[in-house]
Amino acid sequence: MKDSKSKIAIYPGTFDPATLAHIDIIKKAATMFDEVYVAVARNTSKSPFFTEKERLSFIEQAFEGVSNVKVEIFDGLVVDYAKQKSSSIIIRGIRAVSDFDYEFQMAIANHKLESEINTVFIMPSEDYFYISSRLIKEIATFGGDLKSLVPEYVGEALIKKLSKK
Amino acid sequence: MKDSKSKIAIYPGTFDPATLAHIDIIKKAATMFDEVYVAVARNTSKSPFFTEKERLSFIEQAFEGVSNVKVEIFDGLVVDYAKQKSSSIIIRGIRAVSDFDYEFQMAIANHKLESEINTVFIMPSEDYFYISSRLIKEIATFGGDLKSLVPEYVGEALIKKLSKK
Amino acid sequence: MKDSKSKIAIYPGTFDPATLAHIDIIKKAATMFDEVYVAVARNTSKSPFFTEKERLSFIEQAFEGVSNVKVEIFDGLVVDYAKQKSSSIIIRGIRAVSDFDYEFQMAIANHKLESEINTVFIMPSEDYFYISSRLIKEIATFGGDLKSLVPEYVGEALIKKLSKK
Amino acid sequence: MKDSKSKIAIYPGTFDPATLAHIDIIKKAATMFDEVYVAVARNTSKSPFFTEKERLSFIEQAFEGVSNVKVEIFDGLVVDYAKQKSSSIIIRGIRAVSDFDYEFQMAIANHKLESEINTVFIMPSEDYFYISSRLIKEIATFGGDLKSLVPEYVGEALIKKLSKK
Amino acid sequence: MKDSKSKIAIYPGTFDPATLAHIDIIKKAATMFDEVYVAVARNTSKSPFFTEKERLSFIEQAFEGVSNVKVEIFDGLVVDYAKQKSSSIIIRGIRAVSDFDYEFQMAIANHKLESEINTVFIMPSEDYFYISSRLIKEIATFGGDLKSLVPEYVGEALIKKLSKK
Amino acid sequence: MKDSKSKIAIYPGTFDPATLAHIDIIKKAATMFDEVYVAVARNTSKSPFFTEKERLSFIEQAFEGVSNVKVEIFDGLVVDYAKQKSSSIIIRGIRAVSDFDYEFQMAIANHKLESEINTVFIMPSEDYFYISSRLIKEIATFGGDLKSLVPEYVGEALIKKLSKK
Repeated sequence: MKDSKSKIAIYPGTFDPATLAHIDIIKKAATMFDEVYVAVARNTSKSPFFTEKERLSFIEQAFEGVSNVKVEIFDGLVVDYAKQKSSSIIIRGIRAVSDFDYEFQMAIANHKLESEINTVFIMPSEDYFYISSRLIKEIATFGGDLKSLVPEYVGEALIKKLSKK
Repeated sequence: MKDSKSKIAIYPGTFDPATLAHIDIIKKAATMFDEVYVAVARNTSKSPFFTEKERLSFIEQAFEGVSNVKVEIFDGLVVDYAKQKSSSIIIRGIRAVSDFDYEFQMAIANHKLESEINTVFIMPSEDYFYISSRLIKEIATFGGDLKSLVPEYVGEALIKKLSKK
Repeated sequence: MKDSKSKIAIYPGTFDPATLAHIDIIKKAATMFDEVYVAVARNTSKSPFFTEKERLSFIEQAFEGVSNVKVEIFDGLVVDYAKQKSSSIIIRGIRAVSDFDYEFQMAIANHKLESEINTVFIMPSEDYFYISSRLIKEIATFGGDLKSLVPEYVGEALIKKLSKK
Repeated sequence: MKDSKSKIAIYPGTFDPATLAHIDIIKKAATMFDEVYVAVARNTSKSPFFTEKERLSFIEQAFEGVSNVKVEIFDGLVVDYAKQKSSSIIIRGIRAVSDFDYEFQMAIANHKLESEINTVFIMPSEDYFYISSRLIKEIATFGGDLKSLVPEYVGEALIKKLSKK
Repeated sequence: MKDSKSKIAIYPGTFDPATLAHIDIIKKAATMFDEVYVAVARNTSKSPFFTEKERLSFIEQAFEGVSNVKVEIFDGLVVDYAKQKSSSIIIRGIRAVSDFDYEFQMAIANHKLESEINTVFIMPSEDYFYISSRLIKEIATFGGDLKSLVPEYVGEALIKKLSKK
Repeated sequence: MKDSKSKIAIYPGTFDPATLAHIDIIKKAATMFDEVYVAVARNTSKSPFFTEKERLSFIEQAFEGVSNVKVEIFDGLVVDYAKQKSSSIIIRGIRAVSDFDYEFQMAIANHKLESEINTVFIMPSEDYFYISSRLIKEIATFGGDLKSLVPEYVGEALIKKLSKK
């Protein structure tokens, strides 16, 4: 018999753009929790390379037909977004090459702001350990091969956008 | 509406003895997953301070009446235990003062052994960041105050056992 | 009987703004050394959020009436400021989530520049481990609760300044 | 008898400006490999302090008359530059105060892009552990002593350039 | 034209037993240097699982017919062994999950003992990042699959030896 | 005018044996605090190489005639020893190659046990960064040069003791 309450998790990030590491983490999260909200940060201060709509759409395309993954744009504090979704679980990806310190600091701060809310860290599969959005933009700029790094349509969008600059 | 499949997680460890950090992580896990199996490693090579029955009982006492937390002794590979419980989620605590490297290595190895199984890392609340089983035994040996470190009955058992040595 | 020479320490930083972690470290330092000079870096290249006068005044308010803590604005090399104050002790806060590498590099460089000058690292109490000035500005921007992060008057100044932007 | 194939290594970087740590690493590399190409990244996005010609010339001056060290300006992907030089060895300096995560990520990414190409990490001698180009610019700005940090002519160029700003 | 002096590197370790990560690093080293001496530490204090002859033979089998890789048992200081082989290059594997601190300390100490001798760090390919000799023995003990971790003959030897204990 | 209360610090450790890094840290501490008690842990569980009397005497020899450095053997909790000496300052050495995690955990635990007691971390000078007691025993075992690692009399005692085993 199941606990009657759905387990809802949110996965906030900038996703500029979504990589195969992000997509792998979302897939894993979707097997662990009843519902996963991917929360694309509007994040105007960082001046993202892709617009929020583009960043949202890249993830939506990867999870078309997956009923327990939803993608939304969000603004404000992560804990406020979590409460709005009745979620008490924040997902963060963690890689061998992550910025642990910042991740830990955010997790503690979010827990201080809302003591009911906890962060879980999920590792992508080994093949995606080394991927970061920053790296992908560097490789794309110099014409490197993006095949094993991002979904094909993201690679095409990157190249198209770079050629216009 | 809920996904029809229960989300079962296992939390393996030596728990020699269970600290307030371990108990905090189990509590958090119990809100995140439908069922949590705490798997106490028999772990003969490390020659634990407490017997496996004592280690199991310390956790059981803390979760009496909590229906979705079960405590068991296990032996062998963690991934084999997970499969036996129909679980694909391994929980590991992670602290600012954890041995990340070893944790990562284990998580990757377990994922290699069983690609369906993933590890999630959960942080204890800030108050329990600094607690480790090793530290507790050191403090107990020299008569330090264990109140904010372990459940009261664990503290008493530690002192009793040390006085017999 | 005491050594006749006063132990003078300096604590340089940007303090943009001072957090409860900074204030906790200054309090600890004031019990350890005869005099503590908090040195607020003018730091024009980082374009601080608060003016140097505001940053100085936030700390002064917290230490009004504490006779062995003095707050000053400084410019130039930390080691030159230390010598000017007849100090051979630089204090730096260190957190579980600090940028160790940079801190170490600065400590070594300062020691190379003036071999008489050494750096001591002090940890804030556990409650302030997770606080950074960067985090505070993010939380304030989105209307999060600043109560356990900064002195009340700093929180008010932050909100006031943000509302004008 | 020797393997008939020359071992060629490349050492890419911004070198803005070259420090005694960089020069020490190049010297070590020159004893390890038959030829070393120091590849000065044009790197327009980071807006370097010195022009690419200045950065190249600082290194060239240090290795005048050393026949197996060549200095060039490069653009694009590091792996493409390596292939162009028939090199399968990328050298990166590693210090106690390095950004390991980024270094590892780049090494893995380069290996993914070209599986024949590997990265080796070389440590500078202990005396140069603490030196970074960023630190040097900070010290120069405030009139600190640059003697044990950069070649004399780099120190003079730094001071001259800063005085014009 | 080539430098007339051969580049000889040594790769010291316990290799108890050699994993696919070790073998990958030796392969990479063999493309970088003219000769590679794999130096199996007799290492009596650690009481290795396999005898020195077994540990040597596991590596020799993997490099049969590779003329520039030689495997030897050594004793004493690594720098003395290096000098005996006219080598000034020590190779150490480095993994995302390595014990950097110890590696750095050894590298600095060896450089202090013999200033002509330097350490280079080589990463294994991504597939071997997570492998350690300690992990392999744990997995073997509980009957886990060793296929992607060690050469087949090492796996067989492990199982055989464990069954006798 | 000076604060009337003396600043007393304790520096606990195993010191098995004292290295030039330990001695450098004690020297620095002696310039920072009015009195420094070096507390040599009896530490029976680790089975030290040198007896407690030998370990104490190595440090005493280095500070003969230095009136504000005292060396004592201690037992029990560090915080109890600190209280006994009316000290609220624990000194710990910190190196680029330290075990930070353990140091942090101890510092937090000690602060929890006695909230008046704080830990300060002091770095040895660059020349001693790489030295650890463990390393020294390894080097001594194989006849390596100990000159720049330990005081001469410690080196002689090491060699004498090793020759008897």
